[in-house]
Amino acid sequence: STLTLSRTSASPTPRPKVHENGVACKDPAAVVAEDFLFGGLDKPGGKTSKRFGFTANQVQIPGLNTLGESHVHLDVVPGGVFPVHYHPRAAETALVLEGSVYFGFVSSYPDNKLYAKVLRKGDVFAVPQGLVHFLYNNGTAPATLYASLSSQNPGLVLLGNSLFAGALPDDLVAKTLLTDAHTVQTIKANFRRS
Amino acid sequence: STLTLSRTSASPTPRPKVHENGVACKDPAAVVAEDFLFGGLDKPGGKTSKRFGFTANQVQIPGLNTLGESHVHLDVVPGGVFPVHYHPRAAETALVLEGSVYFGFVSSYPDNKLYAKVLRKGDVFAVPQGLVHFLYNNGTAPATLYASLSSQNPGLVLLGNSLFAGALPDDLVAKTLLTDAHTVQTIKANFRRS
Amino acid sequence: STLTLSRTSASPTPRPKVHENGVACKDPAAVVAEDFLFGGLDKPGGKTSKRFGFTANQVQIPGLNTLGESHVHLDVVPGGVFPVHYHPRAAETALVLEGSVYFGFVSSYPDNKLYAKVLRKGDVFAVPQGLVHFLYNNGTAPATLYASLSSQNPGLVLLGNSLFAGALPDDLVAKTLLTDAHTVQTIKANFRRS
Amino acid sequence: STLTLSRTSASPTPRPKVHENGVACKDPAAVVAEDFLFGGLDKPGGKTSKRFGFTANQVQIPGLNTLGESHVHLDVVPGGVFPVHYHPRAAETALVLEGSVYFGFVSSYPDNKLYAKVLRKGDVFAVPQGLVHFLYNNGTAPATLYASLSSQNPGLVLLGNSLFAGALPDDLVAKTLLTDAHTVQTIKANFRRS
Amino acid sequence: STLTLSRTSASPTPRPKVHENGVACKDPAAVVAEDFLFGGLDKPGGKTSKRFGFTANQVQIPGLNTLGESHVHLDVVPGGVFPVHYHPRAAETALVLEGSVYFGFVSSYPDNKLYAKVLRKGDVFAVPQGLVHFLYNNGTAPATLYASLSSQNPGLVLLGNSLFAGALPDDLVAKTLLTDAHTVQTIKANFRRS
Amino acid sequence: STLTLSRTSASPTPRPKVHENGVACKDPAAVVAEDFLFGGLDKPGGKTSKRFGFTANQVQIPGLNTLGESHVHLDVVPGGVFPVHYHPRAAETALVLEGSVYFGFVSSYPDNKLYAKVLRKGDVFAVPQGLVHFLYNNGTAPATLYASLSSQNPGLVLLGNSLFAGALPDDLVAKTLLTDAHTVQTIKANFRRS
Repeated sequence: STLTLSRTSASPTPRPKVHENGVACKDPAAVVAEDFLFGGLDKPGGKTSKRFGFTANQVQIPGLNTLGESHVHLDVVPGGVFPVHYHPRAAETALVLEGSVYFGFVSSYPDNKLYAKVLRKGDVFAVPQGLVHFLYNNGTAPATLYASLSSQNPGLVLLGNSLFAGALPDDLVAKTLLTDAHTVQTIKANFRRS
Repeated sequence: STLTLSRTSASPTPRPKVHENGVACKDPAAVVAEDFLFGGLDKPGGKTSKRFGFTANQVQIPGLNTLGESHVHLDVVPGGVFPVHYHPRAAETALVLEGSVYFGFVSSYPDNKLYAKVLRKGDVFAVPQGLVHFLYNNGTAPATLYASLSSQNPGLVLLGNSLFAGALPDDLVAKTLLTDAHTVQTIKANFRRS
Repeated sequence: STLTLSRTSASPTPRPKVHENGVACKDPAAVVAEDFLFGGLDKPGGKTSKRFGFTANQVQIPGLNTLGESHVHLDVVPGGVFPVHYHPRAAETALVLEGSVYFGFVSSYPDNKLYAKVLRKGDVFAVPQGLVHFLYNNGTAPATLYASLSSQNPGLVLLGNSLFAGALPDDLVAKTLLTDAHTVQTIKANFRRS
Repeated sequence: STLTLSRTSASPTPRPKVHENGVACKDPAAVVAEDFLFGGLDKPGGKTSKRFGFTANQVQIPGLNTLGESHVHLDVVPGGVFPVHYHPRAAETALVLEGSVYFGFVSSYPDNKLYAKVLRKGDVFAVPQGLVHFLYNNGTAPATLYASLSSQNPGLVLLGNSLFAGALPDDLVAKTLLTDAHTVQTIKANFRRS
Repeated sequence: STLTLSRTSASPTPRPKVHENGVACKDPAAVVAEDFLFGGLDKPGGKTSKRFGFTANQVQIPGLNTLGESHVHLDVVPGGVFPVHYHPRAAETALVLEGSVYFGFVSSYPDNKLYAKVLRKGDVFAVPQGLVHFLYNNGTAPATLYASLSSQNPGLVLLGNSLFAGALPDDLVAKTLLTDAHTVQTIKANFRRS
Repeated sequence: STLTLSRTSASPTPRPKVHENGVACKDPAAVVAEDFLFGGLDKPGGKTSKRFGFTANQVQIPGLNTLGESHVHLDVVPGGVFPVHYHPRAAETALVLEGSVYFGFVSSYPDNKLYAKVLRKGDVFAVPQGLVHFLYNNGTAPATLYASLSSQNPGLVLLGNSLFAGALPDDLVAKTLLTDAHTVQTIKANFRRS
């Protein structure tokens, strides 16, 4: 089951690229235990959003390739949020490791029903695939969570950024939000500023 | 998607219900050609949203049960929108039957890149699974589309309604949109009014 | 569905080829809105079968790659057919855009039950995965349909061509159809002629 | 694949029925080893088609429910065929247990290419999902095969019976086979007779 | 995973039961936020195996039904093990919450290669679907882990119990382990005793 | 999810390789009937395990690529076993072609219930996905079976070899089997010897 794309070292042509819908597998003979390990999740790491107050540390394990799971470690400062968002290709289950958060999701149109709870250390909460959810640290101590997603490539859409940080026409956003273009432009300016 | 195993009226106990995750199949011996037919899509029908200016007529074909497809006929008045939304469990492909619309989708965080085109009669446009998209009739004639979705139960989330028509806390929505609680309350009032 | 990893011309060996079971993905950074668009379905196009009287115009949208859908625009002249056929890997749902057709499918052995209707503009009819179906324009005006299939690669088998246009032995076909070799040879000659 | 929730005979109303798309599972506590066994495949059994000369003995193992496989034992008399057919929902792999058969399949439109071999005891041949195939005992001894199918419910469509044993209109079949209505009626009469 | 369609008590016949391959869905109108919550994972709970020294607390969230994930909280005393085992229907990813463990898996026949690491707080380790793995607390403090499995119903097979706690014939086990029946009987006695 | 096969031309390291998770497809134009055939299963062939007394002859059919099935021909000498094992990614159904075997599987923890039968020529027995099973020729004649597996890549784990032929620590194996390190070392020596 091996496909070798050998090249001659003399090749002067532009580098060929193959875009796979996923990640190629490592040579099984070269696989080591470290390919299944990701260390240091007990300390914050990864990308921080100062605007929203969260840090997301994605678990990187080459050995999970094709296994349909991914995991992320989240830190949220007091007053911070992981803003209203969804994952187009995954359900999510989050465990609170430290602190307390208000966590929940909203059901589909036309109900838009809120299912939410204040979670404390040791609580687990689940979000069905693709539904809008959020995480709000409305306490006074930092909160830490460990989230499991049911896809190797869950995707992430932040509702605010999708509406205001891209190139959607102002009048379309205004019609979607039942507001006026001026309000849309004011919020767009905030997304540009921060 | 509810299957009720109704009892004879003599039963004094509350009717037991079994909720299937889907729809029960018809007795094959009782199936007729009409179970595979849905007529009248050439005329508007189904649910109208006066607020947004669209009418959605969902194709109801019992014989499509378990086949992983669904279809909808959309009419949008001039100036109307099918507002920014997504389907949690489906990709979509839409064919313009009449008129012209500005149609597109937004890619995931952090790019929020807009892929959109003005579509005319005979144009087909595709939206990958779960991505935010919209339909804006910015012309002067009514527009009609036929959309195919890659799930029997695609789901629908309108971004505006999700943020403002449900019970999400004002400060959470404000933090998500980088705005203030007053703006959130003003928009919420519009969703209550219409 | 072929991905060729072309070599430099200096290579004296035959060009190696890798056949993917599908189509390679485009570099995401190079993707544009046109990759999700297919235009001109309001006019006939694509491959015409003069023998049967239909023209099939397959929707070509690179952005639909891996999304499990495909679509085709069909024109059938009065008296023409899309002859009895099936798709090995897809269910189908067809919408009549113009004209009127007799459309239906046949259930499995041993029932071979016919489920068929005369469809008019705005009617939608569904065919379960892999079942034999057909489209017969027995009216006096051209008919136009838009068919959605639940696979990126649905496949197509025409029953007549499968039996008579390939290399199946005459006596096997005769035994399958409970007829004699002479009748089989006569029909085969018609398939060769046209 | 029908699950009937039968009522007490006192009920005056028509018996409600729930048709599951599959077979209900047995109470795990009541499962025994016999639920995984099917005996006697070394002797012909099951349904015989005198018209075509084959006997099909389907393996019935309750414990295979939901496991995505099914199996059948086939006996074909000299000169007999399992006529040209396909399975809408499965690939097939057949092992010759006794005798010799001409076995093969036809690729999709427009190639209709024949892939076939004379198989002898101990030969295995594979047919991709949904493609037209056949089995012809053109030897002098009975042939026996064991076929594995990649679906619990593969389905079966015989091309001849689909075209001539059901209610397809004569002129549609004639157009599909590039022949005339008289030839179609003659063959239909043979299907009625036998 | 049993759904009982209970009858009125007047029914003299044995109660019919329908065993679903899974769990029936709740009436959507009756769903509440608590259906997505499981609390108290910060404290040991669930089933304890004194023989091996571990306690497993399975996350019970009705709202995760059909979402293809499950989760378990594990406590292992110093010197304790979650003995060599596998999950027939899931991959696993484990996060160390407290303490330190030796954790790893063994590849398939014929390599039987060991991939293992000593994990500390904050380390995550992944096990491909169905492979044999283990967890050994060879430290002096209790260890706590949170494991995510890529199936709603992953299953569990302990290699020792499978070989010695059931009814496998002694000589079969002896041949499997390249040992003698006396050794097998001695070990079996230990499984009976504890 | 982008794989760039870029190398600097100066690279002195071994040629990079891309391992596909599967097998690349053949050029369709080059496919011949032999690609769907595997001959000679009526005679033993393939890999023999003298230690256990079985010979496994795996069916190699390029045309089965991606079709989700595999097949194997097994010969077991009198007194021989296909020792206790499982397939991480497949269910199995075995047909006895010659002789007689004791065949069965063990259910999951905590039941470890044995489901087994003595099978004779013409008997078929099924094993659910991933469960521990075995084949014991406790008769006096050679036994031959044909097994079908519901995956192209089912995998194989022998419980004895997994525990004793790899590098699992002695005390971990001892704790798993409720025995002592001396017994483990004695068995390990047997696996090294043979």
